[in-house]
Amino acid sequence: MHAGTGLFVSMEGSDSSGKSTQIKLLRKYLELRGLDVTVVREPGGTAIGERIRAILLDNAHPEMDYLTEAMLYAASRAQMVSQIILPALDAGKTVLCDRFVDSSIAYQGGGRRLGDVVDMINAYAVRGCIPDVTFLLKIRPDIAEIRRNTRENDRIESETLAYHERVYETFLTLEKKHSDRIVGVDGTLSADEISAEIIKRVDALLRSKNAGL
Amino acid sequence: MHAGTGLFVSMEGSDSSGKSTQIKLLRKYLELRGLDVTVVREPGGTAIGERIRAILLDNAHPEMDYLTEAMLYAASRAQMVSQIILPALDAGKTVLCDRFVDSSIAYQGGGRRLGDVVDMINAYAVRGCIPDVTFLLKIRPDIAEIRRNTRENDRIESETLAYHERVYETFLTLEKKHSDRIVGVDGTLSADEISAEIIKRVDALLRSKNAGL
Repeated sequence: MHAGTGLFVSMEGSDSSGKSTQIKLLRKYLELRGLDVTVVREPGGTAIGERIRAILLDNAHPEMDYLTEAMLYAASRAQMVSQIILPALDAGKTVLCDRFVDSSIAYQGGGRRLGDVVDMINAYAVRGCIPDVTFLLKIRPDIAEIRRNTRENDRIESETLAYHERVYETFLTLEKKHSDRIVGVDGTLSADEISAEIIKRVDALLRSKNAGL
Repeated sequence: MHAGTGLFVSMEGSDSSGKSTQIKLLRKYLELRGLDVTVVREPGGTAIGERIRAILLDNAHPEMDYLTEAMLYAASRAQMVSQIILPALDAGKTVLCDRFVDSSIAYQGGGRRLGDVVDMINAYAVRGCIPDVTFLLKIRPDIAEIRRNTRENDRIESETLAYHERVYETFLTLEKKHSDRIVGVDGTLSADEISAEIIKRVDALLRSKNAGL
């Protein structure tokens, strides 16, 4: 857990599960409540991270080793934690993160079958900075694939359905393992229905944070 | 140790210690002997690695977190090991590497004071592919600094003398710890004298490799 006074929220799920929409809706709601909100995306989120992101998502690199990939994600994350997330939480801001450690464990650990090495590298990368709550937008890989097929895809999105199924299964395993932190939400609901569920949970967390101050 | 039939040589030392010159001289000698030689440099050495190298050495990124730096080096290395070094050694080629794991341990573990995390990350990155011999060109940091001051320096080279002293001390510790693999050479000798020492040792290793075949 982080030592900051701000609330740290991460949004997880398959590609095309509606994460970005939910981040936007949650941000809007929190800002209307008068909170200072910092939104970051992974990979990227910093000048260095965006340069790493450009390498990671480039379709010109099919030769990328899976371990290289995992280490690039961790490098981008280490930078974002130290440069953006920790200072924001220390300053009492609310941080919304589009993907965080769980995505690495699902995509590289599960999807790429790298296993525990991904957990280990990331434990270093985040230096104890774990979200207060993580929303997992659950949508079956075959449904998500239909959504993906309607647009151009990057290097990761272009992976096989079997890969995306391993990713999804790993997310479900993480949801069970970290049931105190990860809140699964049915990703086939409407954006407004999902948003209402998320806001209800975030409100409760903010109340208990404020009560504890 | 790697499983390939080729010889794996790494060249280590401070910046401006003469590594590149020695790599060139050794390559020339081995090619005259009729060997197939692959030369790689770190960070870089692959298309992905060169993009990582560009981020690492860019003076525009003074905000780079030390852990991010260590992970970027490891990512570049993982790619080079899987894409270049292992296939070359398996094909019986001689591989000459301008910096390898010892540099990470000296620069990030020692210089940046990150310690053991660097060893751990790199143990994953190289997946058992360790050089048959490593030449450490030893030149005191204050002498190397005079050499450096005669040209424009990158982000790492521009570090303080105290940093370069920690790097040097860590190299000396590694030399003692891995005395079966690391051969220290006096970096203040002439390039030809150093080259003669290196060639003598490489010749002996090639003889024993061939005898073992």
